[in-house]
Amino acid sequence: MTYSAFDHPYLSGLLGDEAVAAEFSVAADIRTMLAFEAALARAEARHGVIPDAAADRITAACRAFSPDVAALRRATAADGVVVPELVRQLRAAAGEEAAEYVHFGATSQDVVDTSLMLRLKAIAELFSGRLGALVAALEDCDRQWGERPLTGHTRMQAAIPITVGDRLRSWIEPLLDHQDRLDAMDADLFAVQFGGAAGTLDKLGDKADAVRETLAEELALIDWPQWHSQRSAIADFAHLLSLITGSLGKFGQDVALMAQVGEEIVLAGGGSSSAMPHKQNPVAAEVLVTLARFNATQISAIHQALVHEQERSGSAWTLEWLILPQMVGATAAALRLAGELAGNVRRLGLV
Amino acid sequence: MTYSAFDHPYLSGLLGDEAVAAEFSVAADIRTMLAFEAALARAEARHGVIPDAAADRITAACRAFSPDVAALRRATAADGVVVPELVRQLRAAAGEEAAEYVHFGATSQDVVDTSLMLRLKAIAELFSGRLGALVAALEDCDRQWGERPLTGHTRMQAAIPITVGDRLRSWIEPLLDHQDRLDAMDADLFAVQFGGAAGTLDKLGDKADAVRETLAEELALIDWPQWHSQRSAIADFAHLLSLITGSLGKFGQDVALMAQVGEEIVLAGGGSSSAMPHKQNPVAAEVLVTLARFNATQISAIHQALVHEQERSGSAWTLEWLILPQMVGATAAALRLAGELAGNVRRLGLV
Amino acid sequence: MTYSAFDHPYLSGLLGDEAVAAEFSVAADIRTMLAFEAALARAEARHGVIPDAAADRITAACRAFSPDVAALRRATAADGVVVPELVRQLRAAAGEEAAEYVHFGATSQDVVDTSLMLRLKAIAELFSGRLGALVAALEDCDRQWGERPLTGHTRMQAAIPITVGDRLRSWIEPLLDHQDRLDAMDADLFAVQFGGAAGTLDKLGDKADAVRETLAEELALIDWPQWHSQRSAIADFAHLLSLITGSLGKFGQDVALMAQVGEEIVLAGGGSSSAMPHKQNPVAAEVLVTLARFNATQISAIHQALVHEQERSGSAWTLEWLILPQMVGATAAALRLAGELAGNVRRLGLV
Amino acid sequence: MTYSAFDHPYLSGLLGDEAVAAEFSVAADIRTMLAFEAALARAEARHGVIPDAAADRITAACRAFSPDVAALRRATAADGVVVPELVRQLRAAAGEEAAEYVHFGATSQDVVDTSLMLRLKAIAELFSGRLGALVAALEDCDRQWGERPLTGHTRMQAAIPITVGDRLRSWIEPLLDHQDRLDAMDADLFAVQFGGAAGTLDKLGDKADAVRETLAEELALIDWPQWHSQRSAIADFAHLLSLITGSLGKFGQDVALMAQVGEEIVLAGGGSSSAMPHKQNPVAAEVLVTLARFNATQISAIHQALVHEQERSGSAWTLEWLILPQMVGATAAALRLAGELAGNVRRLGLV
Repeated sequence: MTYSAFDHPYLSGLLGDEAVAAEFSVAADIRTMLAFEAALARAEARHGVIPDAAADRITAACRAFSPDVAALRRATAADGVVVPELVRQLRAAAGEEAAEYVHFGATSQDVVDTSLMLRLKAIAELFSGRLGALVAALEDCDRQWGERPLTGHTRMQAAIPITVGDRLRSWIEPLLDHQDRLDAMDADLFAVQFGGAAGTLDKLGDKADAVRETLAEELALIDWPQWHSQRSAIADFAHLLSLITGSLGKFGQDVALMAQVGEEIVLAGGGSSSAMPHKQNPVAAEVLVTLARFNATQISAIHQALVHEQERSGSAWTLEWLILPQMVGATAAALRLAGELAGNVRRLGLV
Repeated sequence: MTYSAFDHPYLSGLLGDEAVAAEFSVAADIRTMLAFEAALARAEARHGVIPDAAADRITAACRAFSPDVAALRRATAADGVVVPELVRQLRAAAGEEAAEYVHFGATSQDVVDTSLMLRLKAIAELFSGRLGALVAALEDCDRQWGERPLTGHTRMQAAIPITVGDRLRSWIEPLLDHQDRLDAMDADLFAVQFGGAAGTLDKLGDKADAVRETLAEELALIDWPQWHSQRSAIADFAHLLSLITGSLGKFGQDVALMAQVGEEIVLAGGGSSSAMPHKQNPVAAEVLVTLARFNATQISAIHQALVHEQERSGSAWTLEWLILPQMVGATAAALRLAGELAGNVRRLGLV
Repeated sequence: MTYSAFDHPYLSGLLGDEAVAAEFSVAADIRTMLAFEAALARAEARHGVIPDAAADRITAACRAFSPDVAALRRATAADGVVVPELVRQLRAAAGEEAAEYVHFGATSQDVVDTSLMLRLKAIAELFSGRLGALVAALEDCDRQWGERPLTGHTRMQAAIPITVGDRLRSWIEPLLDHQDRLDAMDADLFAVQFGGAAGTLDKLGDKADAVRETLAEELALIDWPQWHSQRSAIADFAHLLSLITGSLGKFGQDVALMAQVGEEIVLAGGGSSSAMPHKQNPVAAEVLVTLARFNATQISAIHQALVHEQERSGSAWTLEWLILPQMVGATAAALRLAGELAGNVRRLGLV
Repeated sequence: MTYSAFDHPYLSGLLGDEAVAAEFSVAADIRTMLAFEAALARAEARHGVIPDAAADRITAACRAFSPDVAALRRATAADGVVVPELVRQLRAAAGEEAAEYVHFGATSQDVVDTSLMLRLKAIAELFSGRLGALVAALEDCDRQWGERPLTGHTRMQAAIPITVGDRLRSWIEPLLDHQDRLDAMDADLFAVQFGGAAGTLDKLGDKADAVRETLAEELALIDWPQWHSQRSAIADFAHLLSLITGSLGKFGQDVALMAQVGEEIVLAGGGSSSAMPHKQNPVAAEVLVTLARFNATQISAIHQALVHEQERSGSAWTLEWLILPQMVGATAAALRLAGELAGNVRRLGLV
């Protein structure tokens, strides 16, 4: 009953990635939404907005919380977002005295966007590590065959001799840049979202900035004024995902073209054919191209969602939910496949 | 562990559709792939390409088949497609004497594309029915309030008075057209795919056309020369999906704009807010816009996949797998939500 | 001072097409807008909506009309559409007595959309002819080399031997289908647009349908109720353009891949390099891929424009203006280049 | 004879921008290509790669050069790029003795990409200035009406009262960020392209890096290893363009929605209608949405072009030419229109 190849029972063998899929599980989503609610309560208590005892109860309730997922599903159908029902359940769990202080001054978007930031931050760290491992594998190729001759090709025609190292550099350099950008996001992108009903933190009065600062600190996110209707950070993250898959798509396309001619590359681990047992298909290389074109398509929707009208656009926001997780999934799959492909190279260049 | 809002444990309350999701289940995929293999065996037996006894055994094996999904997953990772391993399992199930006749003369793409056509055909029928029901609901609105005055708006400004019926016609007419097109697809789109290793049915000699004709008949699909690398039918189907969500997105946008001003429409069933209990959000209307923009994005990837090089492009083909099911999911959700929205109209036009 | 490679002073050598560019000239646009106004006047006179004498004067004024383009430019800046000023100029040209009958009961969108339909109709005829010529050239290749062996390739790997004719069929068949669809558009797509201020032809009373029918007849377009906010026909036309460039992109990609290996194709007329005088670049083949990916991108915007709110969306409509002409330009270039490429084939298949 | 609304004889009144269009004129393109050739000659002379006298002659020839545009057009048709013929003409102009030193060690892509960088750098400066002016105009609105009440809207429904200043901040903040990014590009994006035939500067031996460094200095661009097949910088620039139009599209959408209700904004300068003389259409606001959706579509093609195979992809590179100038054009128009719209605000918020 799955639409998405990224978590399909057997297509996920090709296109899935368990570590990243876990970040888009219900468990991870609820864990990070509760992290927001608990941190908010603590921050509000610290600044005297809510009683300390309420914050303690809310923190405890978050720790012990067990969601009624069927009720979440029903309510999401009506509300368009899971938070109202989640807050209702959390209020019940926190008990009568603390209930009114749960989610105090916050709105659904604060919870969902901050939860997303927390998970994207974990994913960025994971992706950075994979880029590092991939670069290491390609640098290993460079050590082994970097000085061998390779036919440089321009406009799909043999041009002049280059070396394997020249080609490898065109694969490696963008990856180093992408890794740097991922690493910089802790300081320049992953920001708390906290604005309340219409972005003005109207219920917090002159404590608003202090609460937000503490909240950000609790969550190890950047403190930043609410960005409910300003979605550049989402677009920046998606842009980098598509740069990564684009660079890996170029790598895959190059490998597939080399494999077609067949003299300048030897690969292990090709796929088999149901009709031609003799063939060794460069499946991973091809799929890297697929994933690049996938993300190159999806990025368009993220930019469409920049037209985020008024203080909150249900329409534009929901579009992000449909797109961003899949872009992450495609990037995860591309990083995994590129790593496998690099590891399956048995020779590059002419002997 | 799901990436896709269409089958997410709680987002599917808003964006999912169980009837359509079932067509993208593993069970449905395997059922239709086996339908191909069984029908192929029978067609080949009828024309003397394989023994009748083998066809009987294969048909029986298909009927009793229980897939080893973990093995399918592992093999898909290597082969890029599930069919080689599925055929291996089916050969084992069919027994030694029939094994060599399983999948005879066919290739992976024959199985996967034909399986897809069988499921899209069922989906088209389902969607046609929903369009019919939606049109009926809107026509009911017309009967109730069609003659009431409504402010015609052009370029986001009040223009001249029109009637509720005028507006309703702009919603209904495209839906009737879309329904007609869905209904015509049985005769002009849903075609069998059968070409063998490189599209030439090389193993079937002069029986090729007859076998394909019988195969199509067995499966109640159109008989058509193989279209391995000619993907217009996929693009045509996707185009219609996006026309449907586009027309429903216009309906949703219109309703959301009417609801904002709030005098010319009364709606039941709006969504609630975690911050503002008094609000009634026109969630379904907004999400119709979301789904229109989603499909308007995805259609681009389907057109990118038209550049399907040589006799079979693993890259372009895999891109279709990532995109088309989700377009179907978006369309299913849009039809369901539009039906609910139409049913929630309590008044249109000025009193 | 040109942004568009399709009419750039030197890039148009590669990407332009004079016959088609002419249909997007100011002269063609004004000619077809005046054709609408003159035909409208005659239709309204025939049905007694305006005096015969007025219709005669308007027809004469249209025939002799010379636009003040600078004034059109200034007014378009303010009005967002050229028609209000064009009508003002035409009223002045028609003289005081006929002035009030110019554009009677019509709105800007009637003029612009109908003008577009007239020009797309001419373009469809041109494209159909080019597809016919291209098919003839490819069939000529089939006659010369169709029975020669060619290496079938699947998933970027040599598969089994096929014939040149097999490959040619995968190029030719979609083109025949596209040609059929273009030819059918005279009867099923090119429709008059006539709805007045908000689509209700409010000023024509019970003559509305009769006037529209006569107007359509005068212009040799299909008579169809106004489609101001229903843009399926635009999307259908754009879809076919992208199918054409997609099929030609597959042809180009195949040729570029054959040319890279270099044994199975001999081409005349390759491009030269500023760095490597010995190279012969398969420029036309590459650019066919470019144009396919271009249109595959643009089609997304046309589908975004289906969310055409209320009785007329300035926003969605203007988006069509930015996209559709360029899609036509890309298709024109692709048809021209494909024809040149087919004509430059000196050999296909192995000797 | 123009396809593009950005330089159309009358649509450019709405969508054009003369200052920016000038950067995409033939004159500007040739001027910056010659700047590359002259700077290259000087850099090569400084490092003893070519004689000083040759560099002087080439510099003089560039200064006095008058292109034969018709010949450029013919040659571009064959070569797919203008440079081979431009170099031929420049060699003839430089005279026999210097001819062999013209374009020494360079390739077409070096010239075209560097020419583009020079022009994008000028455009970035222009856009930064416009963003500054727009921010100033919006801050002026804030001074006038910032403390007035405004109805905050979420999910297309009235939410809670905010102030005009709150809404203005959501418009201004992203613009300040975009301006910062444009300003940073001098140091982190606008880099020289210089790699020779296949990116290895094969003809320059151990002088390669020194020549490139001097070349960059001469052109006031960043010194960077060749990026022939690494297109992140192009994608980054396009991404920022689309962020700008996205932010302005949000501004336009908000204004159009306010104008529809009509109590919280008073605008001067609306467009007139050919059917309804009383209407004042918020044309600029609508077109800002159009331009946002336009760029949100185009960005997809730029990302598709990241799959830039081997040492140079004619196909992917040409796709950039079709897309990037238009994205610049759309951004220029959006900045101009947003400035006009901000200047036309006569009141914001409730009295």
